[in-house]
Amino acid sequence: MQDPKRSEDTPAPRRRRGGGRAGAAARRGHAAIEQAPWRLPVNPDRPVEPLDAEGVQAIHDGAMRILEEVGVAFLHPEAVAILRRAGCETEGEVVRMDRAMVMEALAQCPAQWDITPRNPDRRITVGGRHILFGNVSSPPNYWDMELGRKQPGTRAQCRTLLKLTQYFECIHFTGGYPVEPVDLHPSVRHLDVLYDKLTLTDKVTHAYSLGAERIDDAMEMVRIASGVSDEAFESGPKMYTNINSTSPLKHDYPMLDGWMRLAARNQGLVVTPFTLAGAMAPVTMAGAVAQSLAEALSAVVLAQAIRPGACVAIGTFTSNVDMKTGAPAFGTPEYMRATQMTGQLARFYGLPMRASGVCAANVPDGQAMWETSNSLWSAVQAGANMVYHAAGWLEGGLIASPEKFVMDCELLGQIQRYMEPALWATTPEDIALDAVREVGHEGHFFGTGHTQARYATAFYQPFLSDWTNHEAWEAAGGVWTAERANRVWKEIVASFEAPPMDAAVREELEAFVSRRKAEGGAPTDF
Amino acid sequence: MQDPKRSEDTPAPRRRRGGGRAGAAARRGHAAIEQAPWRLPVNPDRPVEPLDAEGVQAIHDGAMRILEEVGVAFLHPEAVAILRRAGCETEGEVVRMDRAMVMEALAQCPAQWDITPRNPDRRITVGGRHILFGNVSSPPNYWDMELGRKQPGTRAQCRTLLKLTQYFECIHFTGGYPVEPVDLHPSVRHLDVLYDKLTLTDKVTHAYSLGAERIDDAMEMVRIASGVSDEAFESGPKMYTNINSTSPLKHDYPMLDGWMRLAARNQGLVVTPFTLAGAMAPVTMAGAVAQSLAEALSAVVLAQAIRPGACVAIGTFTSNVDMKTGAPAFGTPEYMRATQMTGQLARFYGLPMRASGVCAANVPDGQAMWETSNSLWSAVQAGANMVYHAAGWLEGGLIASPEKFVMDCELLGQIQRYMEPALWATTPEDIALDAVREVGHEGHFFGTGHTQARYATAFYQPFLSDWTNHEAWEAAGGVWTAERANRVWKEIVASFEAPPMDAAVREELEAFVSRRKAEGGAPTDF
Repeated sequence: MQDPKRSEDTPAPRRRRGGGRAGAAARRGHAAIEQAPWRLPVNPDRPVEPLDAEGVQAIHDGAMRILEEVGVAFLHPEAVAILRRAGCETEGEVVRMDRAMVMEALAQCPAQWDITPRNPDRRITVGGRHILFGNVSSPPNYWDMELGRKQPGTRAQCRTLLKLTQYFECIHFTGGYPVEPVDLHPSVRHLDVLYDKLTLTDKVTHAYSLGAERIDDAMEMVRIASGVSDEAFESGPKMYTNINSTSPLKHDYPMLDGWMRLAARNQGLVVTPFTLAGAMAPVTMAGAVAQSLAEALSAVVLAQAIRPGACVAIGTFTSNVDMKTGAPAFGTPEYMRATQMTGQLARFYGLPMRASGVCAANVPDGQAMWETSNSLWSAVQAGANMVYHAAGWLEGGLIASPEKFVMDCELLGQIQRYMEPALWATTPEDIALDAVREVGHEGHFFGTGHTQARYATAFYQPFLSDWTNHEAWEAAGGVWTAERANRVWKEIVASFEAPPMDAAVREELEAFVSRRKAEGGAPTDF
Repeated sequence: MQDPKRSEDTPAPRRRRGGGRAGAAARRGHAAIEQAPWRLPVNPDRPVEPLDAEGVQAIHDGAMRILEEVGVAFLHPEAVAILRRAGCETEGEVVRMDRAMVMEALAQCPAQWDITPRNPDRRITVGGRHILFGNVSSPPNYWDMELGRKQPGTRAQCRTLLKLTQYFECIHFTGGYPVEPVDLHPSVRHLDVLYDKLTLTDKVTHAYSLGAERIDDAMEMVRIASGVSDEAFESGPKMYTNINSTSPLKHDYPMLDGWMRLAARNQGLVVTPFTLAGAMAPVTMAGAVAQSLAEALSAVVLAQAIRPGACVAIGTFTSNVDMKTGAPAFGTPEYMRATQMTGQLARFYGLPMRASGVCAANVPDGQAMWETSNSLWSAVQAGANMVYHAAGWLEGGLIASPEKFVMDCELLGQIQRYMEPALWATTPEDIALDAVREVGHEGHFFGTGHTQARYATAFYQPFLSDWTNHEAWEAAGGVWTAERANRVWKEIVASFEAPPMDAAVREELEAFVSRRKAEGGAPTDF
């Protein structure tokens, strides 16, 4: 799997479209690292399910009673009007919906749907047993080993992280800005970053729901990059948004506005309440999950009211706070169980699910990796379909780091290898009785034909892990993981080549950006 | 759970025996860290099972055919004689056993058994849904942050690690020497270290199967420390050993000798083949697991021939090598699946199972933690009952590190918290509809009665993780995890108080050690 020659010899699907960067680099023989080829991993494990059937019913009932009795505030008059017409009871901004109506709307949701980016070979399937990973999204700050301190993000840093997003085959979609480029004026920031995303990557693109102009610009730029008509654009998702409710029990105007515009044009819709137990949600996991579901499902009902069959997924971002300080914590045991519980309810509702790769750590050290491991494995255990922030996240999402990105990608590569059925195959050739007989009670298996025929692809091949002994490691400079990751990302960025794009398409994108900038971009008073 | 006052107010079982160190320290108000009290965790998760029923049968059949057709070499004439009398076919050292006989022996094994150390409140149960964790065992070398380099272990370092073993409530049993004290002569090393173990800890003790004298000395010292008669000592396990086969398909003399002596005296028996796929076992996971099972089960048959109903468990230590260098790797995807597959077969055979917490990393950094996380979570997923090396292991077991020990204990604390049913409770109080109604669409949950009544015990309370924001972290010195762990272990060791032991028992132990040293200790020509 890790042999770059394989993509040489076997025409990968994307090669028909000019080849991804890894394939191209391998052909020229200077790939920065060896990695397994692009694929859509399928999670073979039965989910971990802490709740029994009564527990699932109890949380479902809790979510429904919240929707029926407390309601959710929709800070968008049109949304309120749509929901009222759909049969909800409204009282100012507060919308209450009964469970029969909610379940009817949920029955309209597709259990699985695709998003097709400008390179159709990078199409992803959201739902079923698929599990897909995206890069870190939206940190306002950047940190790397040489800088050695946190600083507000720049466009250059954002581009660096987009290159890593494109480079790593274990990353299947882009999230929001991998770091917020605060050196770009907010009125035009979305234009420049989306231009960078669409030219530096050919993977599925996200757009922020931050007002009408931004989301309309994003849809138009994605349409241009894909080279398709409006009709083709709306024939199925070409991009997606992710909105967060303002917990407790509130959806803000800009988020709703983007959500509704994307629903109208048949794009991907992910709603992820950020419910910190003990702060914006009950201190108990069941309570926090029930509230999170109520918030998410209310947005799903809105989307279905706008477009029956709209492509939605619900996310979980339920964690706990440090009760001594109020600081948010991530990758905790409580976070893991909340993620698994949400997975059970997502299956109960027949909806695809989003989870995250997260940590509270401030630097890419041991704590960062046990917290991130906990969160990523809980996403696997929960049967999550999209894993946001899966590479590069630090400090509870306030920092993006390229070293952390590379470290996370090593873990993601292992998780994706873990899902390959070859690992637990039990044909007679796998049981290998002949090889055992051949080696007997002495000697070793290195030299057997059984080993020789398989060694090149038998095991996950790391690109960052150091498996040498301590003496060799010390002789090579005694470099800790984060420092090795620094070398890896710089090499990747130095040799990066953007995926191909037709010159005419690029010119059309550039012209669009120029025109919209000349028009003043988007309002910044949202 | 994390509130030390709780152990103040609620008499913990062990307090009746003079109290563990944590309880005692809490009473005096200077616990180095806050931690959850001692308990035997129960794993509530359904195991992850990559194999279907046919896969289980295929590996079982492979293991049986290895035992029937290839056989296992027993480098111990008495073992061969016992197995011949039990019905095995022998040819020199090679013993072949048919599956009917093997399954008959397995049917005699208890599915679950206890080990009772000198402090009966530290009794552990091996089997069922229990999952227990032990400290790192047997590294020849030591590394800590101040030393900054690898060096051969000493008795002082061994004692440091034993203090951590005793201190952390998430550690349930001691393994072998937490670091090999090479400053002690091999002839008397076992006497000094066992004296240290029995006086610095009151948890279950392991003894190496390294020849008759050592194992007999160990049994006698454990008997003395427990203050029981020979008859009481043999009434059920008071200690255990762990033997490794010499893969492929061989059991060495010293290991077998200790194994047989402990079987005869009804002590705990764990057999763990070290089968590196591609080196000492087939390159395929199914083949490596089948061979590992054949090696382990052959020792189980021997134990049952000596004492029907002997208390046995089988371990897994199947991992892969880096096929470029031959270096062993740990915590890989292949390691995780092999552990899960072995768990399935252990349940098929009705045997308790041992797994490990392992990594290939040379220092306690990011790689160390993702590899260790992978291995510990795979132990949980496999339904393992004993997790060896769960704290302190580096460099594929060649280094013990107190910083890594402390870091691992934070992860173990989280894993054990993860298993508490309170996390997924769904009573009406957990769903918290009243609190949701109270907070409504504004405000927060910090101040609600629902939160106030629960906040002290609602979440895992870390002792090492830093959840402060980057600015606060930087203001506090910008200390990375491994450095924080250094401070924690030094504080624990500085304030360590050994668990109580009757003066008469201690004198008897000292006298035994003195006498055996005067006699020359144990032979060193094994």
